[in-house]
Amino acid sequence: MTSLKEEALHLHKVNQGKLATHSKIPIRNEQDLSLAYSPGVAEPCKAIYDDKDSVYDFTMKGNMVAVVTDGSAVLGLGNIGPEAALPVMEGKAALFKGFAGVDSFPIALNTNDVDQIVNTVKLMEPTFGGVNLEDIAAPNCFIIEDRLKKETNIPIFHDDQHGTAIVTAAGLINALRLNGKSFSEIKVVINGAGAAGIAIINLLYNFGVRDMIMCDSKGAIFEGRPYGMNSVKEEVARMTNKDKVEGSLEEVVKETDVFIGVSVGGALSKEMVESMNEEPVIFAMANPDPEIMPNDAKAAGAKVIGTGRSDFPNQVNNVLAFPGIFRGALDVRATRINERMKVAAAEAIANLVGDQLSEDYVIPNPFDSRVAPEVASAVARAAMESGVARIQIDPENVRKRTQELTSIDRE
Amino acid sequence: MTSLKEEALHLHKVNQGKLATHSKIPIRNEQDLSLAYSPGVAEPCKAIYDDKDSVYDFTMKGNMVAVVTDGSAVLGLGNIGPEAALPVMEGKAALFKGFAGVDSFPIALNTNDVDQIVNTVKLMEPTFGGVNLEDIAAPNCFIIEDRLKKETNIPIFHDDQHGTAIVTAAGLINALRLNGKSFSEIKVVINGAGAAGIAIINLLYNFGVRDMIMCDSKGAIFEGRPYGMNSVKEEVARMTNKDKVEGSLEEVVKETDVFIGVSVGGALSKEMVESMNEEPVIFAMANPDPEIMPNDAKAAGAKVIGTGRSDFPNQVNNVLAFPGIFRGALDVRATRINERMKVAAAEAIANLVGDQLSEDYVIPNPFDSRVAPEVASAVARAAMESGVARIQIDPENVRKRTQELTSIDRE
Repeated sequence: MTSLKEEALHLHKVNQGKLATHSKIPIRNEQDLSLAYSPGVAEPCKAIYDDKDSVYDFTMKGNMVAVVTDGSAVLGLGNIGPEAALPVMEGKAALFKGFAGVDSFPIALNTNDVDQIVNTVKLMEPTFGGVNLEDIAAPNCFIIEDRLKKETNIPIFHDDQHGTAIVTAAGLINALRLNGKSFSEIKVVINGAGAAGIAIINLLYNFGVRDMIMCDSKGAIFEGRPYGMNSVKEEVARMTNKDKVEGSLEEVVKETDVFIGVSVGGALSKEMVESMNEEPVIFAMANPDPEIMPNDAKAAGAKVIGTGRSDFPNQVNNVLAFPGIFRGALDVRATRINERMKVAAAEAIANLVGDQLSEDYVIPNPFDSRVAPEVASAVARAAMESGVARIQIDPENVRKRTQELTSIDRE
Repeated sequence: MTSLKEEALHLHKVNQGKLATHSKIPIRNEQDLSLAYSPGVAEPCKAIYDDKDSVYDFTMKGNMVAVVTDGSAVLGLGNIGPEAALPVMEGKAALFKGFAGVDSFPIALNTNDVDQIVNTVKLMEPTFGGVNLEDIAAPNCFIIEDRLKKETNIPIFHDDQHGTAIVTAAGLINALRLNGKSFSEIKVVINGAGAAGIAIINLLYNFGVRDMIMCDSKGAIFEGRPYGMNSVKEEVARMTNKDKVEGSLEEVVKETDVFIGVSVGGALSKEMVESMNEEPVIFAMANPDPEIMPNDAKAAGAKVIGTGRSDFPNQVNNVLAFPGIFRGALDVRATRINERMKVAAAEAIANLVGDQLSEDYVIPNPFDSRVAPEVASAVARAAMESGVARIQIDPENVRKRTQELTSIDRE
């Protein structure tokens, strides 16, 4: 670990960070200047003034995503502030570009105030074709995303929520293919009431799951629970746990089919897995230590176990989702990323596994270069079909173009 | 002109604008990901959390400039709004990178409100090492710049003001070398009370000029003028025109030594030039048509004539100033761009002309690759000497590094 630490520090220092900008049009001489700058530049300016939508034709906007944070919930580091969050935001931008050719730019804001963050992003809307909210603590992240979705006309996507939810759903689609259960039958326990857990509940609902219970550190969340509630948990309580089951995780996980952990290392014991229905599916995504180690889960009867780690099978890695999702949304100039687009992304990821489906392969490898093109194509199609695309294009062209733009193993 | 227009539109459309982002660190495989992103990225995050100044070491901040506009005064196009302003802002970013290796990013804001613009830039301060204000109408540009200089700790520079002033001053330094006059003796008329004119007055004051009169469309501005005043003109009136001369441009330009036009085409007649003192210096910077055509000015006795156009000698082009100025300011992690740094930039530009000095060569060519390195070095030195540099480095190294980063004729 010392070596990785030193190498990471060194790499960031010698390069003075990671992200840089460049011109797609060469600027070498007076002729170049007269086209890219004065006087030629007046022409696209006038064209956009005459038809505001042509900003997508003549500027970077249509391929540019803001990666917005306040640095309040960075990785496992917590509220480290906007400056210290910058390396993660630059890394995110590097992934956007590397995996799907999406240009993006970190905006680390010196405030935790919801109104200030919302207002700032709204003021920047002319510049960006989409906004990826990143590492913003709950409950602010929910409020900010909801408000921006209502108050802007570009896609707003909190990756910590939806990226995780989409890849988890993809893994679950394939896990259920293995154990023969269906979304409408399964009982699901989600442990951890943070941003990702709530997004998982919302997305699984769209897949037809109706029997879900969310646990926080005080146990099952139910409507009218007299302790440890907030507005988000109240909403969770209304959507889940119809029978108002009370009790600890140990109690409520009994005779369920799926455990989804977005909580803390070691939260799930072998005994708890043994108490679940047959061939249970476990997504234990706490980092760096999962809620249960894969070999323990398997020994206790789990059919499939996924984690957040790259050194175990079935890694739930957001990079499978966000680059292709924004690629597809940008290519059709989507006004939002809606539920149908998220479902389409999860299905596209799941279907890539294909014939190779096995207990240790329900989620594709993050460096599988087919993923972003397939996701982009599926998301573009879903956007057009659900009426949030500003333009109509052939999804197959989106797939091919994304293949060309991906620089994994090339850059 | 049709051909340039079509070519400019085509170039912007096929490239979908001009600016793109890229990662300085390759992202090809899992090992790359573990260093640039999780888990390695936590190390620079923790280092910055422990020592906030190290954000300059480990992130893009130290080489990243925001190009901020509200689209209210774009080129000669006026208040065309933030979307239509984007092509110019992307062009500016292309020039920053091409001429001096400065990364920059357009922020086109959907507001003309001073408080909103100031607040937004302040909130983004963690992300940027400097701010270039661009194409913001007067008087807002003055208020925004003043407030941001007081309320942030990074360089704030309104290029439309200071870039023009610095290059004009550089030209004037050399013009006075030719006609043997001195800054402290000359009488200067500035025609046009916009942002650039005011900045020129401020900078020339720092060069020792004391006899200046500014004219607007109503003639000379003087203290207590009962018509057409505003707070900025009141300040101009206090700094200039000690004798409270009244009258039209035609009247006040008589027996002066320097005419500086930042007004409208044709504002200066041959007869007015003839009424000036001997060997007058004319900077006629209205675009596209200068206040007087160079051949007319010469015929009327002008010693030196500069314009804003590339097809005449002595082009006053901001690109001679802003890339090197920000390069030098960023390299010493300056907290501001002060008057000494602006003076140093003007002198560096002027001195590059050297032995080749002539009436038709008082300002270097914009594509003279020596300019940005010399300006950067001089600005870095001035920043250190005037106590606004966070770190001390050898200015000669700034010059060499800028040479390496310039991609003119290379990119």
